[in-house]
Amino acid sequence: MKTYQVVGIGNAMVDILTRAQDGFLADAGIEKGIMQLIDMDRAVDLYAKIGPAREVSGGSAANTIAGIAHLGGKTAYVGKVKDDQLGAIFAHDLRAQGAVYQTALAPKSAEHETGRCIVIVTPDGERSMNTYLGVTEFLTPADIDPAMMSDADWIYLEGYRFDGPESHAAFAKAIEACKSSGGRVSITLSDPFCVARHRDAFRTMIRDHVDLLFCNRAEMLSMYQTEDFDAALAQAAQEVAIVACTDSENGAHILSNGQRWHAPAVPTSIVDATGAGDLFAGAFLWGLTQGASLENCGRMGCVAASEVISHIGARPEANLKDLFVRHGLL
Amino acid sequence: MKTYQVVGIGNAMVDILTRAQDGFLADAGIEKGIMQLIDMDRAVDLYAKIGPAREVSGGSAANTIAGIAHLGGKTAYVGKVKDDQLGAIFAHDLRAQGAVYQTALAPKSAEHETGRCIVIVTPDGERSMNTYLGVTEFLTPADIDPAMMSDADWIYLEGYRFDGPESHAAFAKAIEACKSSGGRVSITLSDPFCVARHRDAFRTMIRDHVDLLFCNRAEMLSMYQTEDFDAALAQAAQEVAIVACTDSENGAHILSNGQRWHAPAVPTSIVDATGAGDLFAGAFLWGLTQGASLENCGRMGCVAASEVISHIGARPEANLKDLFVRHGLL
Repeated sequence: MKTYQVVGIGNAMVDILTRAQDGFLADAGIEKGIMQLIDMDRAVDLYAKIGPAREVSGGSAANTIAGIAHLGGKTAYVGKVKDDQLGAIFAHDLRAQGAVYQTALAPKSAEHETGRCIVIVTPDGERSMNTYLGVTEFLTPADIDPAMMSDADWIYLEGYRFDGPESHAAFAKAIEACKSSGGRVSITLSDPFCVARHRDAFRTMIRDHVDLLFCNRAEMLSMYQTEDFDAALAQAAQEVAIVACTDSENGAHILSNGQRWHAPAVPTSIVDATGAGDLFAGAFLWGLTQGASLENCGRMGCVAASEVISHIGARPEANLKDLFVRHGLL
Repeated sequence: MKTYQVVGIGNAMVDILTRAQDGFLADAGIEKGIMQLIDMDRAVDLYAKIGPAREVSGGSAANTIAGIAHLGGKTAYVGKVKDDQLGAIFAHDLRAQGAVYQTALAPKSAEHETGRCIVIVTPDGERSMNTYLGVTEFLTPADIDPAMMSDADWIYLEGYRFDGPESHAAFAKAIEACKSSGGRVSITLSDPFCVARHRDAFRTMIRDHVDLLFCNRAEMLSMYQTEDFDAALAQAAQEVAIVACTDSENGAHILSNGQRWHAPAVPTSIVDATGAGDLFAGAFLWGLTQGASLENCGRMGCVAASEVISHIGARPEANLKDLFVRHGLL
């Protein structure tokens, strides 16, 4: 039995959450509903413009790992923070949730600070993310411990990490170590524009290495450069053993081995959409570790996503296992 | 007309908010429902023990000033933070709320970091506060700008600030500048144990300088070392022009010029009691600047307190003016 059920690799960052009207997005030149990368100057400028905020640990794969840890799964996370106050917050919150976080900290003298994401939540609950990657951009193969990767049933790779200079090499090292000991590889496409920036690298990795693909409708369409959703799903299902594609209020579609299932969305009032996909993936992966059917993994994912969008912040607040029981999934 | 309606002086800090069961408090040696001062070692140790947290700007007087700024009052705040990430968060959140915050930052090389308060919220909504003062402990007379104090209709002094080594001298400088230009002085007793630590200094300042006293029942009893609440109120009313004393679910008692009013509490479900007294004071002071009756100032205070305890965090989230209108106060 391996030490870890899931090891995640992603961009480590703290979310700076604030509310604003739609007009603010236009005035500040922010595109609604997506993640945009910003530099430190822009981060400082934008931070000065937003209203009062609150800080919570974020990072897409870190949210997923926190969700699995919350459910009792054995997890670890790899992502780079600096030895600064935001880095301490990030590390604390993962460990406090029960995940292993042992990545070396960039020293206080490092040029870049811990990454942060200014998340602007509009009245419709949609989130527009402005990401200053900071030190997390510079996660390299040296930060990947092959012993940890080979001691994992699953590794979970965050698509956003395709943006760093040595990120592809870091992923390759992790995949090799994981696969060589019989582990499996899951990935999330993260964002349609991230897919557009790195489509070839994504396609190659998916075809050659990925056993479980997480994405949403927009990412799926971007990946296969089509407007035909069902065709894109079918193509993905030919390349990957398991495809789990979320579809907003339409729930999620699961495809594997020639079969297809639909998991319905769980109605809720959307307060903050941040983390919906992250928690879907976390609950799905945890379901797999419990031997749940793929359909039920998808249903657990939809329940977890609905919990996390019902409040501010991208990590679970209610007891997800209780919710799974209430939905007849445990 | 003066530039500022209210200038607050307090301990600047960021709250680290987390939830725990009552058993955790006992295991960690935390006394429930009060503020306890801790050193950095204890702060590190306790932080490692608590669950995932969120960070929001706090500080008692800063919450009050944020509330007044939220209501459109002209405010400034004086309190010391370091030039670090938590300090930047604190300064941002006050300014984003519309308050002036121009205190010199302690440099990056300063020994002490920005203060923080580990707030543990139990299922009953009660908060147990563990305060590492950090650099805010060292606010000195040099940090007090007499021009700002004399340009304020009111100054608002946080009782917690009696704990710093030069805090009494700093308060004296502020009071002198304020009074010399016809301004008035308000103070909050902050905490019954803080009163017990500095009872004589509080008593002297109140008798000699204070025009408006904010406190709660426990602080009032501690101040006058009696179990007779009405007697304590009467004594305070002889020493101070206006007394505004909150009394939890019994609302608040206002005494002035031989008269006494009662403002009823506004029923709500208590999620996090942090900031109730702070926002009571903020709304009360704002009411005064608007020429509201003392009774209505007290009622505004109770409405604002009920808003802030209905959610996590000690600063208003709903529009307080709308709430005042709904309660027939505007």
